[in-house]
Amino acid sequence: MIETPYLLFLGDAPDQLAAKVAQGIKDWRPDYATGQFRLEGCNADLGLPDLSIADAVEKGVKTLVIGVANRGGIISPAWKSVLIEALEAGLDIASGLHNLLRNEPDLAAKAKELGRTLHDVRIPNVQYPIANGKKRTGKRMLAVGTDCSVGKMYTALCVEKALKAKNAKATFRATGQTGILITGDGVPLDAVIADFMAGSIEYLTPDNDADHWDLIEGQGSLFHASYSGVTMALIHGGQPDALVLCHVPNRPHMRGLPDYQLPSLEALQDLALTMARIVNPACKVVGISVNTYGMSDEEAAKCCKDIEDRMGLPTVDPFRHGADRLAEALLAL
Amino acid sequence: MIETPYLLFLGDAPDQLAAKVAQGIKDWRPDYATGQFRLEGCNADLGLPDLSIADAVEKGVKTLVIGVANRGGIISPAWKSVLIEALEAGLDIASGLHNLLRNEPDLAAKAKELGRTLHDVRIPNVQYPIANGKKRTGKRMLAVGTDCSVGKMYTALCVEKALKAKNAKATFRATGQTGILITGDGVPLDAVIADFMAGSIEYLTPDNDADHWDLIEGQGSLFHASYSGVTMALIHGGQPDALVLCHVPNRPHMRGLPDYQLPSLEALQDLALTMARIVNPACKVVGISVNTYGMSDEEAAKCCKDIEDRMGLPTVDPFRHGADRLAEALLAL
Repeated sequence: MIETPYLLFLGDAPDQLAAKVAQGIKDWRPDYATGQFRLEGCNADLGLPDLSIADAVEKGVKTLVIGVANRGGIISPAWKSVLIEALEAGLDIASGLHNLLRNEPDLAAKAKELGRTLHDVRIPNVQYPIANGKKRTGKRMLAVGTDCSVGKMYTALCVEKALKAKNAKATFRATGQTGILITGDGVPLDAVIADFMAGSIEYLTPDNDADHWDLIEGQGSLFHASYSGVTMALIHGGQPDALVLCHVPNRPHMRGLPDYQLPSLEALQDLALTMARIVNPACKVVGISVNTYGMSDEEAAKCCKDIEDRMGLPTVDPFRHGADRLAEALLAL
Repeated sequence: MIETPYLLFLGDAPDQLAAKVAQGIKDWRPDYATGQFRLEGCNADLGLPDLSIADAVEKGVKTLVIGVANRGGIISPAWKSVLIEALEAGLDIASGLHNLLRNEPDLAAKAKELGRTLHDVRIPNVQYPIANGKKRTGKRMLAVGTDCSVGKMYTALCVEKALKAKNAKATFRATGQTGILITGDGVPLDAVIADFMAGSIEYLTPDNDADHWDLIEGQGSLFHASYSGVTMALIHGGQPDALVLCHVPNRPHMRGLPDYQLPSLEALQDLALTMARIVNPACKVVGISVNTYGMSDEEAAKCCKDIEDRMGLPTVDPFRHGADRLAEALLAL
């Protein structure tokens, strides 16, 4: 668990997109986003108060979160002096960077000296069990996609928000680095050892109240040759009661695989449901989440309606239209 | 690659079964099995010459292979002195034990001092790529199972042997510790990081002659909640042209999962083929391998015939009946 609230470190982000992890935290966990820290040359702005390290400590911040990608994979001297200052002022540091904080000798030494924690969320810090497949109490929804990067994390976060707005018990369960930084906890599934993948998801979504929903962030796709094993482990470890199908229309090929077309939503429905019913025979597909980025409102509405007419399932772009209809479908199960 | 031939270390094996890794090497790679080394109290015997370390070196042995499980996960002082002697005499050591050779300070120091290699085949020694899903030349067969531990490794080894007997080009591709020790090479798939699983199998089964068959050892089962992700990565990384379905009749439940029944062969055929055709639309199920251990010859013959009549596919216990019919089915593709 990463201690909250956060100071969001934007560094020298060249543009707003480079700060998308920080943006995600601000969008989805505004209570955690006490302020931002920007270096000279930073072109991103979250509209949060610019705080010095000392200001942040005074406002109760517990962790500096690196909310930006580093250029060329190098933690620059300019970054380093801020990070050291943060450790000295009593903050932990959390990062999803490929190069690990713990591999920076000066940071590691300083953190050890002062008893601070360096959270490298890209790699697991837990010895996960092997999955036992035992039925757990509580309800679980999993977002599955026709492809990678179709909006599975946003879908799960939107459904969590919609359920909470209805006073339902709901917890987003992060399975990737950005999701872990947003919520402060989760499983970096792509970095887990093969034998423990499904077990890590059982660990992430334990027994819960009968009316509690875990909203599990999906990863990869059953149809993606590079990552289908990760998706498979999510389905069997997650034991979902409900699946939401996630899709981007008009993508020319599977992400990173120019030789592969996206499957139809029908094919995804059939295959994901067959797989899920091995561990939960009652599993149902409850709705469809379409990523309509780049479409006009009219185009997005038509796209969702066409899919809804064809598939006979509630179909929305949850980021554009809200996830109310998906939340209602879950509560009706 | 582990250098061959081997001296098979049986240690103080309490019975023949404890030496099953050594037995597998002797059965499947007799050319590698120059001799055995037994300690006092050893109750296993492979029928190979008992060689001292000096004898083994004189006969050209390159590697001492630990062909037995260690009791309680401890490398005893009695073992240790033999292993040190082997390093001093110029041998490498290979092991599939859970506790790693490299974590034994005295072995690690001695190997480093002398320039010997300690092969811990339980963990990868390669940085595998992420799978790219590109079509490769050559043919590939994958053994898939209704459950774990149904004979997928033996099936692939038997088919390799039957193909070679017909002068066909064939290579068994190991994906587990025992298979790696038998052949001296392979991918310990269960220990690979999630994101690289499918890529490790592409790496293991690269472009080859158009008439060459890779016989890929299966792992887990699409129907096994603990390990289905591993199986999925094998199917998508392996790009199989042919699947052989592997089954044990009359098992009361999925291995290690008392709440789960085994699927039917029909269900396995449908699901494995659907998955395989995502990466290789021409993939076919060519036959069925039944593990008839414990049956009489008559019972085994009847069991295979009943399944063959029902499924319409060549059905054998390859260990009992040979894998000729499976090899013929591959060559007829």
